[in-house]
Amino acid sequence: MAANNRISEVVIRRLPLYYRHLESLEKSGVTRISSAELGEQIGLTASQIRQDINFFGAFGQQGYGYNVRELKTHLAGILGLDRGYHMIVVGVGNIGRAILNYQSFYDRGFRIQALFDANPALHGTRLRGIPVAPADTLEAYLSKHAVDIGVICTPREFAQQTADILVAGGVRAIWNFAPVQISVPPQIPINHVHLTDSLLVLSYKLAHSEQAALPSEEDF
Amino acid sequence: MAANNRISEVVIRRLPLYYRHLESLEKSGVTRISSAELGEQIGLTASQIRQDINFFGAFGQQGYGYNVRELKTHLAGILGLDRGYHMIVVGVGNIGRAILNYQSFYDRGFRIQALFDANPALHGTRLRGIPVAPADTLEAYLSKHAVDIGVICTPREFAQQTADILVAGGVRAIWNFAPVQISVPPQIPINHVHLTDSLLVLSYKLAHSEQAALPSEEDF
Repeated sequence: MAANNRISEVVIRRLPLYYRHLESLEKSGVTRISSAELGEQIGLTASQIRQDINFFGAFGQQGYGYNVRELKTHLAGILGLDRGYHMIVVGVGNIGRAILNYQSFYDRGFRIQALFDANPALHGTRLRGIPVAPADTLEAYLSKHAVDIGVICTPREFAQQTADILVAGGVRAIWNFAPVQISVPPQIPINHVHLTDSLLVLSYKLAHSEQAALPSEEDF
Repeated sequence: MAANNRISEVVIRRLPLYYRHLESLEKSGVTRISSAELGEQIGLTASQIRQDINFFGAFGQQGYGYNVRELKTHLAGILGLDRGYHMIVVGVGNIGRAILNYQSFYDRGFRIQALFDANPALHGTRLRGIPVAPADTLEAYLSKHAVDIGVICTPREFAQQTADILVAGGVRAIWNFAPVQISVPPQIPINHVHLTDSLLVLSYKLAHSEQAALPSEEDF
């Protein structure tokens, strides 16, 4: 059991899954759901669901289940989706552009406000209406704008220096797609997206699928 | 505790982290490491490390630690990295191209052999030397080639039908990047990459970072 202010990473990582699922239930017109039903739909036990949700305050009533919209709104607050974030992307190669295309980020309050790239051919062009600025103007931009999330999509050799500039410029969190370990001060939250890890998990399942079929589960 | 043939998803998802870390230790010339050191370096407790690794057979000796190369090779076998995989990518937009650019997949035996896209302007062109074939030739390709992993990078509205064609054509595992839930038979391993989930976890950490700083952890 984690203390209330120190929720385990495993629980945190299940929150988006709950959130997305409640969102789609709400869209389908479902207003109430039991922990047993919710568990069955997303591949967890009812008691796991109840325990996870209890971490974040009492919800649902024995025998009545959860109010879908209420729980979704509550989780949105816990996930910090009720505030809106100023996001910038450094490096607009394929990964950077893919991120720019995720409409669902925008819908959830993550607003990409500026793009940076080292490639002069891109400077002055716009992607999805956002101008691409030279990478060496990043510091100047940060001195004028309060940025919540810096997305690093540079080649690996520029990732650490980009992180350093972002942190020095007051960026509050880092989302790193460069396939390299980067260091930031402990108070700056960082998520590394390692596509390799996802592929290795799939490889594991494939290698073991003939012995014992694993359930198909959500992976990040 | 999971039975030996039914390792928990949480442990499976830590394996790539161990594997990548051992790989980089080996490159730096480290030959032996204790569970305490390994734990400190990747943010887990020594006992968690020992427990995870024990799931896959006895390794290391009390007081002597692990032989880095041996453990790495052992994990490579468990992850199925000792066999080589025939991979195809359906949809070569930004995400598809980003995957194509991951040299580390190739180095680990994941060989992208064919690309498919619905866009006629791309047909006959080559990306990283691999020709882009029309999406409607996918079935014919599958009737002639044994494909291990099908990577779905299509727009969401084509994801399910692509999965159906892949499964009917004998593809053994699916890696889905389309932001939509798709169904495959239970014996087919599938990994969904939900970038949204990673961003929501980051948002959570950001929202809570002023109350209690969470450690920066590896996320998929």
